[in-house]
Amino acid sequence: MANRLTILTDFGTRDGYVAAMKGVIGSTAPDVLIDDVAHDVPPGDIMAAAWALRAYWDRYPQDTVHLVVVDPGVGGPRRALAARADGRMFVAPDNGVLSLALAAADQVAVHSIENDSLLPGGRSHTFHGRDVFAPIAGLLLTGLHVSEVGPRIDNPVRLVWSEPLRYESGTRGEVVHIDRFGNLVTNIPGDWVDVAAFVEVEGRVIGPLRRSYVDVPSGELLALVGSAGFVEVSVRDGDAAVLLEIGRGAEVTVTGR
Amino acid sequence: MANRLTILTDFGTRDGYVAAMKGVIGSTAPDVLIDDVAHDVPPGDIMAAAWALRAYWDRYPQDTVHLVVVDPGVGGPRRALAARADGRMFVAPDNGVLSLALAAADQVAVHSIENDSLLPGGRSHTFHGRDVFAPIAGLLLTGLHVSEVGPRIDNPVRLVWSEPLRYESGTRGEVVHIDRFGNLVTNIPGDWVDVAAFVEVEGRVIGPLRRSYVDVPSGELLALVGSAGFVEVSVRDGDAAVLLEIGRGAEVTVTGR
Amino acid sequence: MANRLTILTDFGTRDGYVAAMKGVIGSTAPDVLIDDVAHDVPPGDIMAAAWALRAYWDRYPQDTVHLVVVDPGVGGPRRALAARADGRMFVAPDNGVLSLALAAADQVAVHSIENDSLLPGGRSHTFHGRDVFAPIAGLLLTGLHVSEVGPRIDNPVRLVWSEPLRYESGTRGEVVHIDRFGNLVTNIPGDWVDVAAFVEVEGRVIGPLRRSYVDVPSGELLALVGSAGFVEVSVRDGDAAVLLEIGRGAEVTVTGR
Repeated sequence: MANRLTILTDFGTRDGYVAAMKGVIGSTAPDVLIDDVAHDVPPGDIMAAAWALRAYWDRYPQDTVHLVVVDPGVGGPRRALAARADGRMFVAPDNGVLSLALAAADQVAVHSIENDSLLPGGRSHTFHGRDVFAPIAGLLLTGLHVSEVGPRIDNPVRLVWSEPLRYESGTRGEVVHIDRFGNLVTNIPGDWVDVAAFVEVEGRVIGPLRRSYVDVPSGELLALVGSAGFVEVSVRDGDAAVLLEIGRGAEVTVTGR
Repeated sequence: MANRLTILTDFGTRDGYVAAMKGVIGSTAPDVLIDDVAHDVPPGDIMAAAWALRAYWDRYPQDTVHLVVVDPGVGGPRRALAARADGRMFVAPDNGVLSLALAAADQVAVHSIENDSLLPGGRSHTFHGRDVFAPIAGLLLTGLHVSEVGPRIDNPVRLVWSEPLRYESGTRGEVVHIDRFGNLVTNIPGDWVDVAAFVEVEGRVIGPLRRSYVDVPSGELLALVGSAGFVEVSVRDGDAAVLLEIGRGAEVTVTGR
Repeated sequence: MANRLTILTDFGTRDGYVAAMKGVIGSTAPDVLIDDVAHDVPPGDIMAAAWALRAYWDRYPQDTVHLVVVDPGVGGPRRALAARADGRMFVAPDNGVLSLALAAADQVAVHSIENDSLLPGGRSHTFHGRDVFAPIAGLLLTGLHVSEVGPRIDNPVRLVWSEPLRYESGTRGEVVHIDRFGNLVTNIPGDWVDVAAFVEVEGRVIGPLRRSYVDVPSGELLALVGSAGFVEVSVRDGDAAVLLEIGRGAEVTVTGR
């Protein structure tokens, strides 16, 4: 039986919304171990949440339930999902927040939560985290199978980001995530580039690919293959997003592979 | 036996103060499951904490212990409380932080923590979270009854906010809470208004009551009955507090019910 | 067997990095109870993390594992440590982050993590929290002894701060930590001063030593012996760091003891 649940939201850390969900889950599954992931995802930023989820979902053991509530479309027609992927379970709105995790999994089954008999309290129009996702997460923790929540679907919403382009001479991609340290994470896979690679961002030379932050002096820009497996641009002991005044979508080129 | 505890504080998320409390509790009740609620309540903002607590206290199962430490009066004459309400337990300073939760409960017993034999480490003058509330919470988790902490009292401090006024033509209330999304939560109960209601804030027309955020285009103001059961003023995908430059106490009128 | 782990990092609260560590730990020690300490330590601020750890490490029961990952030197030559001190275990980079806790302990054994057979996934160059510290923490929770991680060392990095100076007429020290409330924590032990002491900061008179915040009117500066046992300078219901525009290193003098 599953006994561990993670929660990722954009609910912040000054209200009672996250705890309302935890209480609902704890009422159904009293022994559940609840791990907070993070609650300061920028409000409504589905891409940031998808990226965060990608970092941890498969580090957890089989049968873990991952609850993700970044849900700007609550109350509208977007579906609610329960999924199983490589042995972990997921509960989230159908807005793409699961798509990076599901794309990385081998075995995936996604179901639309439509069996309202599982939700005796009904669905509110403003807080499905508490009224839909938390109750279903609690039931999955106590033995419900994802297939019982509703019909299997094969078209969950997928986030679209531009694919990196490979040329004879290198690769052109873009910044897809900026983390709390100001690291600029790109969509260029680390195994597309080699040690002789040379990196530029928006035409500005960053330099050769490094192995770790300490390979340059404090305060200097560098590029490396980061912990997510993608090329990242960073400042040692600093914030590359602030220094370069760059956001998601900025062009990154890597010459040589 | 209780096995789950929640913690709400204004201690922030960069110091060791919250963990000092958790360690004290874990020393007394080694198997306790500890759920963080939130730690970025604005420093000393009792009203914000009371509002947060209201959102989750009764979502948790019976015997949960809710620890709330927003305590600007530490070291002064304010009492320390342990309470039981509708089967949940509470430990907090007597400054009103419990008053919204207790007002919503049917069965309430509030006791003043005066039995200092339960606090062998003594009371510090600056950190009762660690030295008074955490030890008592740990004892409640391991079987102490709230009545054992000290005498029952019938006059815990209650937060005062102006009551909404009902007129023939509608209701006048005020903003009582602003959440992390910038939603303006009012003191006007959702069941006082009906679908034909029309909302204004400080004389600015918001419009008819909506059912959910997605009923208006992105970036537009709207009013709805929020997850707490009160009329709220929001901006879809935005921050109403910032857009309207409005704080707690702003006047809200609802015409029609 | 240990069953509780704490995590202190500078990873922030919007990414998946903390949860990646939790997942690794939960995969090795499925029943572990994980307590977040705080994740908004300023990036790379070893001193702030050391100070936070000092507040809670010995409030936890024996066999607790304290994981601390503030690691600006990741990928460089700094060692990785597992330690045991007064019955608690620690896992952290060797950069001084443990030094205040270890200095306060009676029985200390520090080992350098060099037994790479314990790390079948290898060591990354950018995220030892996930790839070195979390796996070792998981193993310690399931019975590994700290001595099994690698050789015992007697020269872990120690943070240096200037010692306070005692004169005939008083003490001169400095601000060593600023907490979330803006309290200025000094390196002057509370038991060096007495009730007749008189405090100045950078030449500005704060006044006599108080017992608690409520001993002065709201908004006023005061000095007291804070919860950590050191002289602190505070503003009741306010932020002394902001009011005085003062940072770490500011000179504090106490006249009389």
